[in-house]
Amino acid sequence: MAASALPACELLACDWGTTNLRVWALDAAGAVTAQRDFPLGVSQLAAGEAARRFHEEVRPALGAERTPAILCGMVGSNLGWAIAPYVDCPASRADLAARLLAVEDPGGPVRIVPGVRSDGFNGRGDVMRGEETQLFGWLASHPRYAQGRRLVCHPGTHAKWMLVEDGRLVGFVTAMTGELFAVLGRHSVLRSEAPSDDMAAFDDGVEAAGDGDALAARLFTARARIVGQGAPPQSASSYLSGLLIGADVAATPRLLRAQAEEVILLGDSRLCGLYARALSARGAKTTTFDGEAAAIAGLVALHGMEMAQ
Amino acid sequence: MAASALPACELLACDWGTTNLRVWALDAAGAVTAQRDFPLGVSQLAAGEAARRFHEEVRPALGAERTPAILCGMVGSNLGWAIAPYVDCPASRADLAARLLAVEDPGGPVRIVPGVRSDGFNGRGDVMRGEETQLFGWLASHPRYAQGRRLVCHPGTHAKWMLVEDGRLVGFVTAMTGELFAVLGRHSVLRSEAPSDDMAAFDDGVEAAGDGDALAARLFTARARIVGQGAPPQSASSYLSGLLIGADVAATPRLLRAQAEEVILLGDSRLCGLYARALSARGAKTTTFDGEAAAIAGLVALHGMEMAQ
Repeated sequence: MAASALPACELLACDWGTTNLRVWALDAAGAVTAQRDFPLGVSQLAAGEAARRFHEEVRPALGAERTPAILCGMVGSNLGWAIAPYVDCPASRADLAARLLAVEDPGGPVRIVPGVRSDGFNGRGDVMRGEETQLFGWLASHPRYAQGRRLVCHPGTHAKWMLVEDGRLVGFVTAMTGELFAVLGRHSVLRSEAPSDDMAAFDDGVEAAGDGDALAARLFTARARIVGQGAPPQSASSYLSGLLIGADVAATPRLLRAQAEEVILLGDSRLCGLYARALSARGAKTTTFDGEAAAIAGLVALHGMEMAQ
Repeated sequence: MAASALPACELLACDWGTTNLRVWALDAAGAVTAQRDFPLGVSQLAAGEAARRFHEEVRPALGAERTPAILCGMVGSNLGWAIAPYVDCPASRADLAARLLAVEDPGGPVRIVPGVRSDGFNGRGDVMRGEETQLFGWLASHPRYAQGRRLVCHPGTHAKWMLVEDGRLVGFVTAMTGELFAVLGRHSVLRSEAPSDDMAAFDDGVEAAGDGDALAARLFTARARIVGQGAPPQSASSYLSGLLIGADVAATPRLLRAQAEEVILLGDSRLCGLYARALSARGAKTTTFDGEAAAIAGLVALHGMEMAQ
């Protein structure tokens, strides 16, 4: 689609992460008129490159040379466009909106959403950039969850478990569950050829996760069940996934002192489905919300625009 | 040293693992007269190659063309010379000696020590090949430990926690602690350049391991302490080591229902030193024994030779 064919837009809403930049063009009512991905993740950019590429490539590709833009994610880190200092927990949407970082762009106003910092579970601290925008977008779209205490999980490479009280993010913990799955499945004795989507093996892994302790020993059962028990090698990946997700859902909420009967899952639908399955095996209730819709809603809410219903 | 200069030997004692073959030549009194390493780990050998390389390279290099040999380790697996079937727990030294596998070699008699299989902690089973020889060698050299209940840890890529009762191996669990350290330190967001030997960071990691639950979340503190708290990046490796070893010593013994006041450490002295440090931080007493001496003693004992004192 040529840029000239694009409808006029009022806001560029951008989720600019480590590996990818996703841009939504929104009209005056907050409805999405176009969406584009760019291979401009901040890990691939040299210092100073983010600003230039945004102006020279992103804006023209969306016919949005003069449109205001709002960006969330790692673009606000030392690897990105400029450092948007962390907001400390407890943090509300208003706290974030008050701390948007304005950066220079010849095309039009550009603002970066700050990340959030918490004490973590042990005083060593924890940080996020991007998930906070999805969290406040989800709350803005579903105001009934803005009262009371909520445990929200955003699964992924670095899964975030977030505790929300009366609409404020009061604490969170990161679990590198997705990254463990990736590096063990690629580089360890647990790597597997031709992985299959084997839900029985996934459930078996969830069970083997037990209470989420002694992970290094529980992981070795992924090897022993194939070498010693003749389980099919292509089931190893699903078993590993079940074991890691099972250990995450069993143990991480304890670090937040947040054992909850209901867990809100926010993010990618396939991954949320696996977390829902593992949580359900432990008797927890889950409700899942789409992460992309939440990201758009969060960027719109922080920009101060009324959202299309 | 030319082979012709080697003293005559009565036994070739071989620890033949996945990555390396270590051979000790022993005299009639069981004393070591020569030691050689060969880059012939079974992971580097094609089918049928172990027998040929042993005869054509190993024997001549040690001037031991006609000497009896005893081998332990992965050489007894499907990747090695021949499969020496597992002995099930509970297993004694006599059980292993009765199940040595004799294989064909034109030079002289060659026997392979069987591995051991246990139920593991959850009925999924667990296996070892090689550590059993060190265990029984240590017991043969230190008979006062052959009474009562002993918890023995052999740290390494795949750490083995072994429960011994009256000289018999009654159960064990494998924790892939060393492999997690290697793959995370090399391939994850926790990789670090120019790691330093930082004992304060190691101790900090042991403390962060807590009770050994929620490892995926605890691991992320290795990142947060650098990004959020300004800890030196070259300390990340020692912190990661402390965290993984701390989690191992805190949680794995529980899977064996073997919380013990004293832990016997058997293996590489540097690694045993780190485990001793982590166990001591948790109030456990440790005694360390050299793994190489135990391997020689085990091979000698299983061969039926009297050991040099």
